[in-house]
Amino acid sequence: MTQEIKILLREDEMPRQWYNIQADLAKPLPPPVDPAGNPIGPEALAPVFPMNLIEQEVSQERWIDIPDEILQVLAQWRPSPLHRARRLEKALGTPAKIYYKNEGVSPAGSHKPNTAIAQAYYNREFGIKRLTTETGAGQWGSALAMSCQLMGIECKVFMVRISFEQKPFRQMMMRTWGADCVASPSSETETGRRILAETPDTPGSLGIAISEAIEQAVTADDTRYSLGSVLNHVLMHQTVIGLETKKQFEQIGEYPDVLIGCAGGGSNFAGLTFPFLADKFNGKELRVVAVEPASCPTLTRAPYVYDSGDVAMMTPLLPMHSLGHGFIPPPIHAGGLRYHGIAPLVSHLLQEELIEATAIHQLECYQAAVLFAHTEGFIPAPETSHAIAQTIREAKQAQEEGKERIICLNWSGHGLMDLSGYEAYFNGQLADYSLPEEQLLRSLVSLEGLPRPQ
Amino acid sequence: MTQEIKILLREDEMPRQWYNIQADLAKPLPPPVDPAGNPIGPEALAPVFPMNLIEQEVSQERWIDIPDEILQVLAQWRPSPLHRARRLEKALGTPAKIYYKNEGVSPAGSHKPNTAIAQAYYNREFGIKRLTTETGAGQWGSALAMSCQLMGIECKVFMVRISFEQKPFRQMMMRTWGADCVASPSSETETGRRILAETPDTPGSLGIAISEAIEQAVTADDTRYSLGSVLNHVLMHQTVIGLETKKQFEQIGEYPDVLIGCAGGGSNFAGLTFPFLADKFNGKELRVVAVEPASCPTLTRAPYVYDSGDVAMMTPLLPMHSLGHGFIPPPIHAGGLRYHGIAPLVSHLLQEELIEATAIHQLECYQAAVLFAHTEGFIPAPETSHAIAQTIREAKQAQEEGKERIICLNWSGHGLMDLSGYEAYFNGQLADYSLPEEQLLRSLVSLEGLPRPQ
Repeated sequence: MTQEIKILLREDEMPRQWYNIQADLAKPLPPPVDPAGNPIGPEALAPVFPMNLIEQEVSQERWIDIPDEILQVLAQWRPSPLHRARRLEKALGTPAKIYYKNEGVSPAGSHKPNTAIAQAYYNREFGIKRLTTETGAGQWGSALAMSCQLMGIECKVFMVRISFEQKPFRQMMMRTWGADCVASPSSETETGRRILAETPDTPGSLGIAISEAIEQAVTADDTRYSLGSVLNHVLMHQTVIGLETKKQFEQIGEYPDVLIGCAGGGSNFAGLTFPFLADKFNGKELRVVAVEPASCPTLTRAPYVYDSGDVAMMTPLLPMHSLGHGFIPPPIHAGGLRYHGIAPLVSHLLQEELIEATAIHQLECYQAAVLFAHTEGFIPAPETSHAIAQTIREAKQAQEEGKERIICLNWSGHGLMDLSGYEAYFNGQLADYSLPEEQLLRSLVSLEGLPRPQ
Repeated sequence: MTQEIKILLREDEMPRQWYNIQADLAKPLPPPVDPAGNPIGPEALAPVFPMNLIEQEVSQERWIDIPDEILQVLAQWRPSPLHRARRLEKALGTPAKIYYKNEGVSPAGSHKPNTAIAQAYYNREFGIKRLTTETGAGQWGSALAMSCQLMGIECKVFMVRISFEQKPFRQMMMRTWGADCVASPSSETETGRRILAETPDTPGSLGIAISEAIEQAVTADDTRYSLGSVLNHVLMHQTVIGLETKKQFEQIGEYPDVLIGCAGGGSNFAGLTFPFLADKFNGKELRVVAVEPASCPTLTRAPYVYDSGDVAMMTPLLPMHSLGHGFIPPPIHAGGLRYHGIAPLVSHLLQEELIEATAIHQLECYQAAVLFAHTEGFIPAPETSHAIAQTIREAKQAQEEGKERIICLNWSGHGLMDLSGYEAYFNGQLADYSLPEEQLLRSLVSLEGLPRPQ
């Protein structure tokens, strides 16, 4: 054997603290507000989240200890390997070195359990018996289903209807882990019934599913809501990815020039990049690129505003790039990237020009995913394919410039539960959806009258 | 963090040679024969397999070097982790220590690529442009599809019809890796057309699919056939599993008391156990248990005979436990265990009383699989669930006896592509198929007049 492929860490090298990027922001994150623009305090979130997670949400501490019980569960698959994509490099003929952090090794097949385990744990510690949530592609829903089972509480999942129909095996996966999963909009909530009455054929959206899950949470004492992305504490739980990756690069004496992550709600992007951004704050040269679908171009085309996280405006207003809380993205296969907003922390970093963003069409993404599967073997999730497409762009540019470059992407999950998207791609049934300007403008009307972040 | 969960090896600790158990057999394996009972030489296999693999099939060398190119590809996911199933142990309240070797980490999700990569490599080296094969559950077909793509040759898969229909995503997986997959019996071969004419509603069987794949291989110069189990060289390629596991136990200063593997064709069972049996030959105390489905009880109820590997009798006669080459097993969900025979080497070891065998009903297996998913997180393949069910039996016995015991099972693959079986289980749609005595006797009629191994 000639060349090292994977950089591994031992279990005892797992990070024992999460990194909270809020501690290092030069300009602090604007607070959540109510529709009148008044900051919302932690207590207002108490019907939705347990107080121990709310404390993490607003914490300004740089490092927060990871409880032993969480570490012990994460250790069933973590630390995840950092792979050198030598065969992909060779196929591209690039002088760039390409690394991917393989979050597909978790039982749920994605990075999502990193926060699902933590959230299930903190809710159980707070005395909560049942979590509700939404899921798009199903990666988040299955991660929470597994985590609730492992932590001994119940789980209810509202799954965006288009994904529910495209991915029956995702429902079976959640059921296997003991969760109850229904298509959203559902007839189980006020919000769901209203939307079904108005638009019976709606494909659903993450915004609608969130409304339904929150509605069920706030109407029962022993129930809380769990969100798989967007919020500060969720992004923080994902920093184990980047903290491990930093150690792995240290081990081989390298440091990346470019970090790449797909961005829907922003959690897998944040998980890889935030611990490296800590170095950038200290002057390290580093490019950090978020990749989103051209059909749902939050970072690249949406304004930076205060908007609600859900369609029924049950959440506080968050400072973020948003296409408008009523926005219903086209039914692309990367269901995890079909969200009208994006994490306030990611939005803030873009505003501060600490990160870049780009939008890519799904055909280029599937082409990249197939090349990846044909060279590296692993079949990527449709979401992950966005990061791969951008990686290939960067690698080709390195080739044109004749420069070596170290690229690292967050391989957020495998695509074994998402093969119908590949089938549609091979059958020529996929289109390159771009968001029409008029639809964007129509959607942004819902933002009128809302306050603006300073 | 308090307790170690996974025992990992570094890439440079990967085995660089396969272990060939034939070198250590006290009584040699009887040779393949023709229907008259005359031994068949290597040259007779040349239309079916490339000569470099035939040499491995008949080799008596104890160690055979693994080429660098194969190691380099295997290193994309190997060495695989050995997990301590602490949460399962706790749920069972057993004093036993349970370890599982996680072969689900491969891109195809099972142990099958260990030999698929090797076979694609040796065929390509021999100048072959295209491989044909059969697949039951689809684990083998997808492994070969991936391996042919990685090694740059074509792949054609005949998939047992019942699995083809139950598992549409398996076809998409093979297509994603560039293979051509059809339901068997198909209209593309003489054998397939004959069987379709006789029994249009047949669920198919591995025996039929093998006939079809061999027929296409022997009728084209640049095409050969690839078998995912049963043969000596296939089992040998899998010994990387057991060789790694031995190193992993050395690392923690332990040695298993019981090894457990599910057994269909026998390759994953052999992969874990053969390197340990080498110690048993030298007097080490060790129990080795093969677990098969009660609906297809080859080792536990079938006679030790000479029989063909396929329904059309295109293969030489192999010395093995066989239910008869015309046997069509009930449509249980563990498609990979639906085979009328079992590897000659495994059959031989049972004859020599070096291993034990047991048969378990599928309901007990699914119950075990769900308990595993609820404790360890990972969802097992239906085949793997047989090994888990036996592990739980052993762990409970340890509890009754109040004795510590070290159990190690081969966790042959994940069940993410096999969730319809779980769904049927939860819906109460699964039955406990047992093979009726009269059906067994009827099937064994096909063995009349065939020679018997000495």
